[in-house]
Amino acid sequence: MDEKNIFIGKKPSMNYVLAVVTHFNSGHDSVSIKARGRAISKAVDVAEIVRGRFIMDVNLDDVRIGTERIVDEDRRDGLNVSWIEINMSRPVQDPAPKVRVGNDVIDGKPDHSE
Amino acid sequence: MDEKNIFIGKKPSMNYVLAVVTHFNSGHDSVSIKARGRAISKAVDVAEIVRGRFIMDVNLDDVRIGTERIVDEDRRDGLNVSWIEINMSRPVQDPAPKVRVGNDVIDGKPDHSE
Repeated sequence: MDEKNIFIGKKPSMNYVLAVVTHFNSGHDSVSIKARGRAISKAVDVAEIVRGRFIMDVNLDDVRIGTERIVDEDRRDGLNVSWIEINMSRPVQDPAPKVRVGNDVIDGKPDHSE
Repeated sequence: MDEKNIFIGKKPSMNYVLAVVTHFNSGHDSVSIKARGRAISKAVDVAEIVRGRFIMDVNLDDVRIGTERIVDEDRRDGLNVSWIEINMSRPVQDPAPKVRVGNDVIDGKPDHSE
């Protein structure tokens, strides 16, 4: 499975939107957007901006939530942090689409040099 | 379908946790936790605290995300806001569990008055 994880942190949302769009546009078919704690809201924003403004044919496969236990050396009790995982995929694109030229079907762009 | 919507706002997370737990404990079998914008992270926290600390047998049915267009009278262009909806349910509880007393099965608490 051709998947890539993009972890949402403290940068502006559009940085992560660009990372997701770039990943899809370089031919990959799926992305997993992950975030913890307060970055969860930003992860949803990133997914929604990609879907609504940049890659219209992307599918929202599933959204998972959960809790992760963070072990902090300063605290003996540990800390629970919520996480989200948003899995998106795009129908596989043929990088060189078949093009019909006359009665022949060739790969890539039609050749007009003849 | 017996469902209740709980909208996450600016109050502390535990207020909403209490609302969800109270709803389930009053015999209802499902809750939908909804939030927009920055409250999305808090909605995930609320769901995870309910699941992890209060109602262990609750099911996370599905998590949906989307975009809502807010029409603001001061802005002509409107504003897109992300939302999340977390649907949880609990196996239906028998409000008066059958209790075995001797060879008889009766409803409710055993009657010790005999």
